[in-house]
Amino acid sequence: MLRTHTCGELNMQFTGQFVTLCGWIQRIREMGGMTFIDLRDRYGITQLVFNLQVQPDLFAKVKELGREFVISAKGRVAERSSKNTKIPTGDIEILVDSLEILNASKIPPFTIEDNTDGGEELRMKYRYLDLRRTVVRTNIELRHRMAILTRNYMNEQGFIEIETPVLIKSTPEGARDFVVPSRMNPGQFYALPQSPQTFKQLLMVAGFDRYFQVVKCFRDEDLRADRQPEFSQIDCEMSFVTQEDILNTFEGLAKYLFAQVKGIDTGDFPRIGYDEAMREYGSDKPDIRFGMKLVELNATVKNRGFKVFDDAELVAGINATGCCEYSRKQIDELTDWVKRPQVGASGLVYIRYGTDGTLKSSVDKFYSADDLKAIAAQFSAAPGDLILILAGKMEKTQNALGTLRLEMGKRLGLIDPKVFKPLWVVNFPLLEWDEDSKRFYAKHHPFTSPVPQDIPLLDTDPGSVRANAYDLVINGVEIGGGSIRIHNRDLQKKMFQVLGFTDELAQEQFGFLMNAFEYGAPPHGGIAFGFDRWCTIFGGGESIRDFMAFPKNNSGRDVMIDTPSSISEEQLKELNIKLTS
Amino acid sequence: MLRTHTCGELNMQFTGQFVTLCGWIQRIREMGGMTFIDLRDRYGITQLVFNLQVQPDLFAKVKELGREFVISAKGRVAERSSKNTKIPTGDIEILVDSLEILNASKIPPFTIEDNTDGGEELRMKYRYLDLRRTVVRTNIELRHRMAILTRNYMNEQGFIEIETPVLIKSTPEGARDFVVPSRMNPGQFYALPQSPQTFKQLLMVAGFDRYFQVVKCFRDEDLRADRQPEFSQIDCEMSFVTQEDILNTFEGLAKYLFAQVKGIDTGDFPRIGYDEAMREYGSDKPDIRFGMKLVELNATVKNRGFKVFDDAELVAGINATGCCEYSRKQIDELTDWVKRPQVGASGLVYIRYGTDGTLKSSVDKFYSADDLKAIAAQFSAAPGDLILILAGKMEKTQNALGTLRLEMGKRLGLIDPKVFKPLWVVNFPLLEWDEDSKRFYAKHHPFTSPVPQDIPLLDTDPGSVRANAYDLVINGVEIGGGSIRIHNRDLQKKMFQVLGFTDELAQEQFGFLMNAFEYGAPPHGGIAFGFDRWCTIFGGGESIRDFMAFPKNNSGRDVMIDTPSSISEEQLKELNIKLTS
Repeated sequence: MLRTHTCGELNMQFTGQFVTLCGWIQRIREMGGMTFIDLRDRYGITQLVFNLQVQPDLFAKVKELGREFVISAKGRVAERSSKNTKIPTGDIEILVDSLEILNASKIPPFTIEDNTDGGEELRMKYRYLDLRRTVVRTNIELRHRMAILTRNYMNEQGFIEIETPVLIKSTPEGARDFVVPSRMNPGQFYALPQSPQTFKQLLMVAGFDRYFQVVKCFRDEDLRADRQPEFSQIDCEMSFVTQEDILNTFEGLAKYLFAQVKGIDTGDFPRIGYDEAMREYGSDKPDIRFGMKLVELNATVKNRGFKVFDDAELVAGINATGCCEYSRKQIDELTDWVKRPQVGASGLVYIRYGTDGTLKSSVDKFYSADDLKAIAAQFSAAPGDLILILAGKMEKTQNALGTLRLEMGKRLGLIDPKVFKPLWVVNFPLLEWDEDSKRFYAKHHPFTSPVPQDIPLLDTDPGSVRANAYDLVINGVEIGGGSIRIHNRDLQKKMFQVLGFTDELAQEQFGFLMNAFEYGAPPHGGIAFGFDRWCTIFGGGESIRDFMAFPKNNSGRDVMIDTPSSISEEQLKELNIKLTS
Repeated sequence: MLRTHTCGELNMQFTGQFVTLCGWIQRIREMGGMTFIDLRDRYGITQLVFNLQVQPDLFAKVKELGREFVISAKGRVAERSSKNTKIPTGDIEILVDSLEILNASKIPPFTIEDNTDGGEELRMKYRYLDLRRTVVRTNIELRHRMAILTRNYMNEQGFIEIETPVLIKSTPEGARDFVVPSRMNPGQFYALPQSPQTFKQLLMVAGFDRYFQVVKCFRDEDLRADRQPEFSQIDCEMSFVTQEDILNTFEGLAKYLFAQVKGIDTGDFPRIGYDEAMREYGSDKPDIRFGMKLVELNATVKNRGFKVFDDAELVAGINATGCCEYSRKQIDELTDWVKRPQVGASGLVYIRYGTDGTLKSSVDKFYSADDLKAIAAQFSAAPGDLILILAGKMEKTQNALGTLRLEMGKRLGLIDPKVFKPLWVVNFPLLEWDEDSKRFYAKHHPFTSPVPQDIPLLDTDPGSVRANAYDLVINGVEIGGGSIRIHNRDLQKKMFQVLGFTDELAQEQFGFLMNAFEYGAPPHGGIAFGFDRWCTIFGGGESIRDFMAFPKNNSGRDVMIDTPSSISEEQLKELNIKLTS
């Protein structure tokens, strides 16, 4: 080794020892005839001292040094006269005897500090420098720790990690596939997996009753802050289980990670039904760190002559506690906010509960003081509160109100970033109707089993069929989701029919799975966790990008290596394709 | 859980308990009024007993059952009258009270037995059934165990697993890339990584001084038995190290895996130079489980009028101990064997050392009895031995003799499959001359550093430059290889020049790495192990395919899911490509 110790481990116990450290120069300070250098590596920072009067021979070399130079320094550990209590090595310094420059550095394009002066694009281009910053490095270290804890926990529970292929088959269901032209099979393509879903089900048919994999998945989608073309899943599947077994098993994993990584005992996770989540939180991934639940007002407010409410499928609201002093301007701003397309409400009705006990609303024309009092009572509102009401189509209004609830929670400081509230959402609908294509889509995926007693409804009222499906939600973020799968060929065939697949198409795309179901498929189910998201939530980050070593930007580009990029005519020719643009 | 126990855990301690087992029917036997069923799961086999006279109500259901049906059976654990000592559950059986058919099965296309009647193609098509066979299942279990042991060992040593991207940049050096058209960047492509080489070097520049990853890699090559389009590597890199540090660190990993997986203490691994390996074993991945070393005869046999030897760059042989009784026919067959293009020798000279002490050769005309005696002495040959000699160009003859050595070792039963002999091969040449393209190629890859004292030779005699590179070889199989890398921009630039890159091309392809070297790149080096191969060697298999859950065939096809396959016109259009064939 070129070093005897790291820059993070020396303290008073080492004084008097001769050591060799290697690292990057964080900072150089000159004071009189002394030069102080903060030397940094992955483990910490140690102060080097050069006394240029005692060692004039080092003078020339020290003068050459600059920020981010890589050096090796040999010397004696000594107690510092002025200690730095902020770092573990702050009691000591190294009195350097000899110095070697292992590599020079140009001046980096941004400062290697927690609060850097580099913008995102510049930092992405020089990601190898960005990764030197402690805040970024610790994200990557957290990710490693979460992965190894997960693997060991799963292994302890008897799960086997099995690598499924990356070069698989393109299927039209779900998001867009990335494809890979096959040179050896002209005109044909592999696809990169959106998830190992069918393979893990085949592994259940193969008898590997407890499978998991931390695995890369791929989706060719237009990107947002929390989407990347490649991302990682903790992918899991079990045989001979009920939904209850799966929830218990993976609640175990989540509790273990909470305890090990965050030092938190979360207690048992609450479970709430999809309908209840939508009704009370206006979201299928509710943030239950705060209350402000939605209250339905249909029975109270309808048939009083206010057409907006009378025509609405749902009238509901939330209580913004303590907001009665909101100015006209603030309420107008809030009204504009809910009318933005991202929220999609058509207007906002409010009721002010004055500190003097009076109630005033924007719809006083239709509702008496007693009416307003009755409404306020439904919210358990008190003087000083402000009730915000939306109306319209059921799901749209629930969603809008859920979004408004989160916004008000943020504005009122009700959301504590240090608190973690995991929960299970269960009893999802099996299918979603798509108005554009006039067909049902699988809410989870086409292999999700219906709740057994709802199977007859597949023929009569598919939209009302509930699924044996569940999501793990933490602080309003969906961390994972899964389901008990269909393991019966006929039911799977039926499901494809409901989704509008012809028998031929179903056979062409998923024939291998349906065939497998004819050779003794066990009852099975599973779950997949968004590993990047889970790391992001535990690390307290904003974007999954911050928890990936080499993420891509919103155009799917890696600006550091400058890819995607053109390939040679020869490569295209070998692959039997040509460009159309 | 649908079961209380697995089919592998019940024994005499459980007698009298009521249990529920789930699994697949391995075998059904009827004897009088009794039906015996072997129920199988991942953990073992347990015998179920149905007494149809006592439980006539089960009769109809039992009659329906067939091989590979999935059932759930509930009953009491009882001692068997005739025990089966071959399996851990052989002392007991389950007296079944109730039976549920969880799924039926068609008759499988081949038997689910260690010695199956299914050919490879059929088994690949029904891989989910093939994986039910114990021999295949244990391979996959071994792979999981090797992966988790590796990860924990590396973690203990302070290495961080970091996921590098799968969608990267196509580079012309090395094997052919798989590419992925980018929809969002028309006309541009990602490539799938042949290895994370440049990324792990960037991670060193980023300061993550100990990186590893168990990672999928991709090569679009024509396939052989031990090649797959996607395969897995244990990829590792360290900073501030010398070659010695890397060999010690990863010899530690290898010893740990040998101890944990095989229960073997290998002792320290010998290290031999590339030149020595070629000279003594005719191979840069010598199988040192047996001797039969190559002996050079140039000094002894040249200038005696035998033109074949006189013209040869190398005359060398091996001693096939105890083979002096080989018949003319056997020697002719061996001569034909070495002349096959895979071996490439032009002929075979032999010297028989008769049991009576007489020496006879196929070149008696040129060499006297004393000459032959002198040659035999060089081989330490004894009466009864047979010396086999090849001659020709240096490297070609070494390789041919190395191949002949392995063949004779096999034929003479000198190679014990239960013995493991790991070693390091070091001091590889940096470059290889390619006669076709009249240029040098990097023997390892273009980032390998030359031995420092050989750097000046890059200008004068590139072919003689030695590399700071090393391979780990076990039983004649290269399990891993690596090098100390170049961390200096100028030397890297020089290396690309020697490889015939223009500055522009080097900048276009590897500019990001060379730029990174300007910002404080530490000295670093690493290694990558072929994880599939390592599993195969530890599992005693022939092909890496047997240690992958879902391998592809020699045309790169997955015959189970039937891919690669055609994609829709719409997909092609979105990707801005069209087919040319």
